Amino acid sequence: MDHTLESLYWRYAVKKFDPARVLPEEKVTRLTNAFNLTATSYGLQPIRLLVIQDKALQRSLVPYSYGQRQVADASHVLVICVETEVDTSYIQRYFDKVQSVRGTSAEILKPYRDDLVGSFSKKTPEQIRMWAVQQAYLALGNLLTVCAVERIDSCPMEGFVPEAYDRILGLTEKGLTAVLVLPVGYRAADDMFSGLKKVRRDLKDTIIRIQEEPKEL
Amino acid sequence: MDHTLESLYWRYAVKKFDPARVLPEEKVTRLTNAFNLTATSYGLQPIRLLVIQDKALQRSLVPYSYGQRQVADASHVLVICVETEVDTSYIQRYFDKVQSVRGTSAEILKPYRDDLVGSFSKKTPEQIRMWAVQQAYLALGNLLTVCAVERIDSCPMEGFVPEAYDRILGLTEKGLTAVLVLPVGYRAADDMFSGLKKVRRDLKDTIIRIQEEPKEL
Repeated sequence: MDHTLESLYWRYAVKKFDPARVLPEEKVTRLTNAFNLTATSYGLQPIRLLVIQDKALQRSLVPYSYGQRQVADASHVLVICVETEVDTSYIQRYFDKVQSVRGTSAEILKPYRDDLVGSFSKKTPEQIRMWAVQQAYLALGNLLTVCAVERIDSCPMEGFVPEAYDRILGLTEKGLTAVLVLPVGYRAADDMFSGLKKVRRDLKDTIIRIQEEPKEL
Repeated sequence: MDHTLESLYWRYAVKKFDPARVLPEEKVTRLTNAFNLTATSYGLQPIRLLVIQDKALQRSLVPYSYGQRQVADASHVLVICVETEVDTSYIQRYFDKVQSVRGTSAEILKPYRDDLVGSFSKKTPEQIRMWAVQQAYLALGNLLTVCAVERIDSCPMEGFVPEAYDRILGLTEKGLTAVLVLPVGYRAADDMFSGLKKVRRDLKDTIIRIQEEPKEL
């Protein structure tokens, strides 16, 4: 089996981290770079990543994480956040960035920019929020696979109280809200979940293939 | 730079595929396996993957893909779908699978099963749909990274007419609806987009780090 599939089999949602082990800085930098390289809708990157390495703070998040100890014991806790305001000035900043990186003229970018501003101005705040949240899930999918390939253990979590995270981590005043939590580090030697067989539907129940009929000779 | 980050830099949203090149079956199987290994909420896998390799069919999808030629020219077109009905019997099938794979007794699984059935019965159909769609994005994030690491070119697409895809591909009668489209294959040698610099926010604008204060000695 190739390394990628082997990595995805190796990955599991860690129930118990080894609290004594810390990810080397090089691995953390790799994860932050990978996060920033995530593909997002229109390239707008309505997502940000909080990287927490502070045991007291991590412990204080446990009661707002349905008691899940992984938040306290993991080497680092990643929190994927979305921007609460994706307005015209936010979209403009993206086009400023395109201009500065690629040297594309404002004139060439204008029709695309105007289309995007027009399309977002028609969306309700809730529609924009759901759009941003979808990009957060896309980023989680990227991070989980990067972690696996890099042999970093992780545990994706939807179960936490976003309002408490936003308050404790000072996200609200930064215009952010927490969407997904991903403790990362090393599995404990005695995490009984690491030995369990992976449960997945049979491939035939997940994949539908449509192939061209072979031509008659 | 390590292989993973290098792969993410190599990846871009392909605008023009080489219509003559076909992914070897081994690569396609790797993608379908990777898709099935995607982590999903509660392990419920409310997602399925359609793998299309049929030029006539691919061409017929172009008008319902805002004219994007990638759908016709790519070696294969992947369509990530969600299950339209996640009801008690759907959840039961997951627990039957856990029982058959791990040999866990129904008695041990019962409280967890009842919790999950209870929690889903309180959700509106729209909430269940949004939950499933989020898992589709998670799977896309996984697939994009696996493609990059395996040097398979791809182009993630949100812009298409789901109702037309559902009808043409016979998804509705299978209890599915199309959420995301991912043509895969090989970039054309003259795709001018492959040479463009990647546009991303500076790392300092994407990542927020919180680290423990060093203790005073």
